Amino acid sequence: MVRLIALYSQPDDPAAFDAHYRDVHASIVGRYPKLIGVRLTRPDGIGGRPAAFHLMAEMSFASRADLDEALASDAGRESGRDLRNFAQAGVSLFVADDEDATDG
Amino acid sequence: MVRLIALYSQPDDPAAFDAHYRDVHASIVGRYPKLIGVRLTRPDGIGGRPAAFHLMAEMSFASRADLDEALASDAGRESGRDLRNFAQAGVSLFVADDEDATDG
Repeated sequence: MVRLIALYSQPDDPAAFDAHYRDVHASIVGRYPKLIGVRLTRPDGIGGRPAAFHLMAEMSFASRADLDEALASDAGRESGRDLRNFAQAGVSLFVADDEDATDG
Repeated sequence: MVRLIALYSQPDDPAAFDAHYRDVHASIVGRYPKLIGVRLTRPDGIGGRPAAFHLMAEMSFASRADLDEALASDAGRESGRDLRNFAQAGVSLFVADDEDATDG
């Protein structure tokens, strides 16, 4: 399994962010070809400090090739453009290839 | 399951970082009480851009209480102190409670 991970920085208006993600962005992501699933979690801080991130989205694919196909698709390009509509605070995007993961 | 996620920024000397993580830090984390497992992945970038992070460590626990117990333990405090020995470029730490995760 390969995950595309999106970490969204804390937005100025969390309620507006959540509404846009739920009502607009999630349905675009849902149209990614080859998408296996999406896990959304709300990061919590530790030691009494707030988390730097507001939302983590983990989108899973069978392979890196499938992930790249999704990002190159119409839905992939649309989701990239949509970021400017709600992720102005910043988003960090990266890929975690769990086939290469190690225990440590 | 609850994950403690550590995202390490790209270090100036990746080889030194990896050696310290493997030879020192991993064994401290391995002494966390209640730790179920650790998954280490090397983030890859997308669209030809490098990932902002060098290493992602996902440490899993049965509950947030177990995670907090681990962080408050001798090993937890030692791992926090050890960060200054290899994570000078920065590390982002947060908790993902997968019991509360949603699909979207």
